[in-house]
Amino acid sequence: MPSITAYPESVERLIAQFATLPGVGRRSAERLAFHILKSPREEALAIAQAITDVKDRVRHCSICFNLADKDPCAVCADPTRDASLVLVVEQPKDLIILEQTGMYRGAYHVLLGRIAPLEGVGADSLTLSQLIERIERPERNARGAAVREVILGLNPDLEGDTTALHVAERVASLGVKVTRLARGLPSGSQIEFANKAVLADAIEGRREL
Amino acid sequence: MPSITAYPESVERLIAQFATLPGVGRRSAERLAFHILKSPREEALAIAQAITDVKDRVRHCSICFNLADKDPCAVCADPTRDASLVLVVEQPKDLIILEQTGMYRGAYHVLLGRIAPLEGVGADSLTLSQLIERIERPERNARGAAVREVILGLNPDLEGDTTALHVAERVASLGVKVTRLARGLPSGSQIEFANKAVLADAIEGRREL
Repeated sequence: MPSITAYPESVERLIAQFATLPGVGRRSAERLAFHILKSPREEALAIAQAITDVKDRVRHCSICFNLADKDPCAVCADPTRDASLVLVVEQPKDLIILEQTGMYRGAYHVLLGRIAPLEGVGADSLTLSQLIERIERPERNARGAAVREVILGLNPDLEGDTTALHVAERVASLGVKVTRLARGLPSGSQIEFANKAVLADAIEGRREL
Repeated sequence: MPSITAYPESVERLIAQFATLPGVGRRSAERLAFHILKSPREEALAIAQAITDVKDRVRHCSICFNLADKDPCAVCADPTRDASLVLVVEQPKDLIILEQTGMYRGAYHVLLGRIAPLEGVGADSLTLSQLIERIERPERNARGAAVREVILGLNPDLEGDTTALHVAERVASLGVKVTRLARGLPSGSQIEFANKAVLADAIEGRREL
């Protein structure tokens, strides 16, 4: 004659599953589970289906490692883009942000991370060897294009810089030109609020008018 | 030649689905979607399966409206519990909290809400008519027991009191005894921090020693 001190098994399991998500504790997980319980059946199943679809359909482009539901991805498959120019970013989100500017018509390479020794992420965990292969064997690049320039678009912080240095060394050793995105004062900011590192970049990278 | 300004369709759809959950905005939804993308396939599908299972398996007990994966629920099906005693609560969570005390061996009735005119919740939205039916037609109650006492266990606040009054009137008109959970000083608290309403309840409900 036990007391009923838990929800039905499937409800407890749903709460436990939600609690595995980042930033979701036991109380939020309960709230989410009760939301699912109260939702119309189709709405709840649409969430389950979306999770399944993502796992079934989304993959990384085999050339640039961007997220894609087709392989190669839309950028690598686009004949109007210059596949000899490769902009290296850390994550798919960075690619989208750069695309939103509408300013870049080359290709990308997504490293899927950055070198972070403290978190146990070394160069081997990244897609760097695949970038090297794109350069060494043009038939592995989009439309067989020979890479003539690699642009480093890593985050301008300690780990991004470490990664950039590593990638630059590897790429330069193949005789390919390596550049990096410009650093300086962010457009629309005020000098009085800029920090030392930003000002140092701005001075060092000054350009003649 | 459009720029790639969005994630693949299935990723965007997952983000949109997560954003329908309570307390989840676009940014959290993106974080959750990327967590799903990075998770091992089985872990992600376990979440989808848990959602589906809850919708497939969990129902309300047809007698007391507790959440259950069997009908009648574990409480209503337990022959050692006194089905002539019915404790009325607002939601399944309240039932679990009461069960955790191990002090109650009767049955329950879950109203699935409370009267809240401002939110458009009237007595009709609750399971009150089903409670009345359990009383009027004992064959609808667990093991055909005639209800001899209804204990009101609604929240001690304005809407809970309004609901309790309404339920009490309906039940009393059928000649069944109606009681409510005691109110007073919460055990372990300090009188100096008790508010007026709590002290008024404590004085009014004082008991002889």
